[in-house]
Amino acid sequence: MPDCLFCRIAAGAIPADIVHADDEFVAFRDISPRAPVHVLVIPRRHIPSPADLADVEADLAGRLLVTAARVAREAGLDAAGYRWVLNCGPDGGQTVPHLHLHVLGGRALGWPPG
Amino acid sequence: MPDCLFCRIAAGAIPADIVHADDEFVAFRDISPRAPVHVLVIPRRHIPSPADLADVEADLAGRLLVTAARVAREAGLDAAGYRWVLNCGPDGGQTVPHLHLHVLGGRALGWPPG
Repeated sequence: MPDCLFCRIAAGAIPADIVHADDEFVAFRDISPRAPVHVLVIPRRHIPSPADLADVEADLAGRLLVTAARVAREAGLDAAGYRWVLNCGPDGGQTVPHLHLHVLGGRALGWPPG
Repeated sequence: MPDCLFCRIAAGAIPADIVHADDEFVAFRDISPRAPVHVLVIPRRHIPSPADLADVEADLAGRLLVTAARVAREAGLDAAGYRWVLNCGPDGGQTVPHLHLHVLGGRALGWPPG
């Protein structure tokens, strides 16, 4: 998906403040952070949204969460806690059509979550 | 974990408005809904929080997301979209120490997510 912003970040074609990268996932700081720690975790593979996660992607989805747990731990958030957010479509406020998980921490997150 | 509220809901010992149940997961409506659709998806197995998801739980974590996608679809949310939220610890606002995924939809969710 050469026109996808997050595919281009994953490929290194667009710079980002990357905090984790492996064969399958890339994590980088949100350019409009809404918390002291605000990192996006994305699969390199182009999956448009949570709604596109079918049984065939279960393994990848699971590793996405395990990777997000690792990113949060390495950011020092485990003791105080954090929030994960995945947006789908217009009502979810999804602005980039490439599956991404927000890790937010470093402050007390309020309720409701948007 | 006999004292865990969500273990007891999963076991049927405490009533809940269940919208999905299978061998591994249960989904039920939040008793304090913050959106027209507000469902919690939990594994029957007691995992305290997102921070406890290690490699050994990757398969379960993946199926959790796939189940959440199915719950959202069956609630009619796919076209308009929705938000998934997983809270970890105090800063995340986690109130029940049993891993749970919030599915929120039926209205436009704001930003930041708490």
